[in-house]
Amino acid sequence: MNAEIISVGTELLLGQVVNTDAAIVAQELSALGINLLYSSVVGDNPERLKEAVETAISRSDLLIMTGGLGPTTDDLTKETTAAAAGKRLVLHEESLCRIQTYFNAASVTKNQEKQAWLPEGCTVLQNDNGTAPGCAFQAENGCTVIMLPGPPSELEPMLKNYAVPYLKRGQESVIVSHNVHIYGKGEAPVAQIMDDKMNGENPTLAPYAKEGECLLRVTAKAKDEKTADEMCQPLIDEIKRRIGDYVYSVDVETLEELVVMELKKAGKTLATAESCTGGLLSKRITDIPGSSEVFHMGCVTYANEAKEALLFVPHEILEQHGAVSEETAKAMAEGIVKRSCSDIGVGITGIAGPDGGTSEKPVGLIYIALSDGKNTWVTKRSPIGRTKSREWHRHCAASQALDMVRRYLTGLPVIPES
Amino acid sequence: MNAEIISVGTELLLGQVVNTDAAIVAQELSALGINLLYSSVVGDNPERLKEAVETAISRSDLLIMTGGLGPTTDDLTKETTAAAAGKRLVLHEESLCRIQTYFNAASVTKNQEKQAWLPEGCTVLQNDNGTAPGCAFQAENGCTVIMLPGPPSELEPMLKNYAVPYLKRGQESVIVSHNVHIYGKGEAPVAQIMDDKMNGENPTLAPYAKEGECLLRVTAKAKDEKTADEMCQPLIDEIKRRIGDYVYSVDVETLEELVVMELKKAGKTLATAESCTGGLLSKRITDIPGSSEVFHMGCVTYANEAKEALLFVPHEILEQHGAVSEETAKAMAEGIVKRSCSDIGVGITGIAGPDGGTSEKPVGLIYIALSDGKNTWVTKRSPIGRTKSREWHRHCAASQALDMVRRYLTGLPVIPES
Repeated sequence: MNAEIISVGTELLLGQVVNTDAAIVAQELSALGINLLYSSVVGDNPERLKEAVETAISRSDLLIMTGGLGPTTDDLTKETTAAAAGKRLVLHEESLCRIQTYFNAASVTKNQEKQAWLPEGCTVLQNDNGTAPGCAFQAENGCTVIMLPGPPSELEPMLKNYAVPYLKRGQESVIVSHNVHIYGKGEAPVAQIMDDKMNGENPTLAPYAKEGECLLRVTAKAKDEKTADEMCQPLIDEIKRRIGDYVYSVDVETLEELVVMELKKAGKTLATAESCTGGLLSKRITDIPGSSEVFHMGCVTYANEAKEALLFVPHEILEQHGAVSEETAKAMAEGIVKRSCSDIGVGITGIAGPDGGTSEKPVGLIYIALSDGKNTWVTKRSPIGRTKSREWHRHCAASQALDMVRRYLTGLPVIPES
Repeated sequence: MNAEIISVGTELLLGQVVNTDAAIVAQELSALGINLLYSSVVGDNPERLKEAVETAISRSDLLIMTGGLGPTTDDLTKETTAAAAGKRLVLHEESLCRIQTYFNAASVTKNQEKQAWLPEGCTVLQNDNGTAPGCAFQAENGCTVIMLPGPPSELEPMLKNYAVPYLKRGQESVIVSHNVHIYGKGEAPVAQIMDDKMNGENPTLAPYAKEGECLLRVTAKAKDEKTADEMCQPLIDEIKRRIGDYVYSVDVETLEELVVMELKKAGKTLATAESCTGGLLSKRITDIPGSSEVFHMGCVTYANEAKEALLFVPHEILEQHGAVSEETAKAMAEGIVKRSCSDIGVGITGIAGPDGGTSEKPVGLIYIALSDGKNTWVTKRSPIGRTKSREWHRHCAASQALDMVRRYLTGLPVIPES
């Protein structure tokens, strides 16, 4: 089954919005074993949209449209797609009711009502998180057409809860993928280490760069999930053997998710003391639902006075070594353990840029310390001949702190021997 | 001039990576007044890539390729595009040198060297943030082809510093856009208020939803920037007149950027006390370079004990009203002012979900308080008949806190009269 995505919206062609919808849909199609061959963006232009829809319906078995279902006059997807597929729009009373309920009002504006007009005979896909319903129907040549709303917070649950079950009716084979996540080794060396395995047919192996990390995706196609899993396993084992303890997880998608899991497993708590990351580390930890069980407190100590007052960093250390130093990072990690009574404390201090760097302490110099109240380990990140963004430095420092916690919790050397 | 983007990478069709590259390129093209008509994604498949490149070269004046310039065997963009355009690849010595310097090594691996092979006669676009150089050349029919690396941290500076100047040679008209940012009114009501202005030709007006906010983009085309600006201004004034103090900025792209600017202007400092947002608010403030001048301290008090110890929240308030209450938010804001000696303190406490909600205190119930040490204001966010994600609740709560700070600093009612 060959599929195609058309994302609708001039805002995408103007670059005002990133096309996360296409990525979300692509992931689900991949999990369903549906080959996505084309993904394109069309502006809010009826002629080009009509042409794109007609081409897609003629060459693909499945067309998924995202965006342009909303209330404003430049929301054209339904009208244009229905016309291209030879369908009338009819008022769907239940959807109108849902829109009225959403606004707590019996009378809705005319442009809000527009959203309840849907192609005749379609399966309505309910919108539990917004006003515009989606829909699914078959074009005359048998191509399945699905329309989903643009805002990712509406598209994602509608896709998972209504569109995927619609697509799953009567599938014969499954594709299973497993992501082997790696921290501390780049995409190129990892790809080289695994080079002889890169041209497999089933399972396949593909390397992907993630910001400051990378992952290897192992994918197998089989008659059922269990068989596909069994086909993946030997390759996953081989990756672990070759890459070693740089592999931080299989299928746990982020370091923060893994760290929260490992903290729960160990029955330990973590506290954070952040300077240059400014709360990013605690934000990432608390992105994970249920993190309150293992994370009670974090301090963002941007100013020196805050480091002294909240984290007991001695004035002399700041004076003698400066805020960006191994000594300060160490004192921050030890201080937050004391302050929070947590089992593990992490301290991060550095220069995220773009300004504030000197030749001695350049942008990108960041110290990260982990303390368990008895021992403290410090890692130094140095910029090596490349300019990276403030965002990148902050993200990578937070990731490295999480990796140190992971290593500590799983009994590995906190700082990898290299 | 009509342009087209082809983003290359099976990871995009599998949804493992969001296509931010296309958005970054689209933004720059829009700023250059170049019409982007097509944006599509092709996998690491030589046949389909060749076909897409040939179609693009035949129908567009400008083709921008993103991704697939890297060292691994599935990086096929250069080989395939050069072949489709009838160009040989030749070794570019200077790029090889740069790659050697990047790795601090005289000998680089063979797959790293591959990156220095470029189409003959091309203009090399230097990569200041990674190893793969980009390039620009003209195909035989006159179509300009530009290739950029996939990682956004490499693509973005290469685009701005080298590709845009390459494209700017000899342009005749400019497009200027201004974004009017709005907090506290949704896209649909804003679009309705401005409905009679939506069909203008020059300037144009278009509404965009942003997570929990919206913006109106005013765009004019003219012979020079000053003239285009003058064409935009009356429409911007009219938007401000109709939308009122919900307009938070023109062209300051985020609430956090605006708040840091206003704090500097007022010579005031801000401190944060966060529970359910877990550091997101301080993270967003410290995303802004130079925020250290106005932000010295933040506390993430996830546990009740942390609220008592760090923020002096009275035990009785927590016991009597609970952690998620108007009283606790107020005590947090007042406590962080005391603790930090800052001029303004913000406290956020609520239930971000997905678990932890009750019928009395449902997921999405969040209290946000602002205190200046004398007066304290509290806003209550209630979920209204819709399920939103943890991420959404956290993001919107942080945005609302920033909006309260903005209102306070600019002399508006801290809580808008509605």
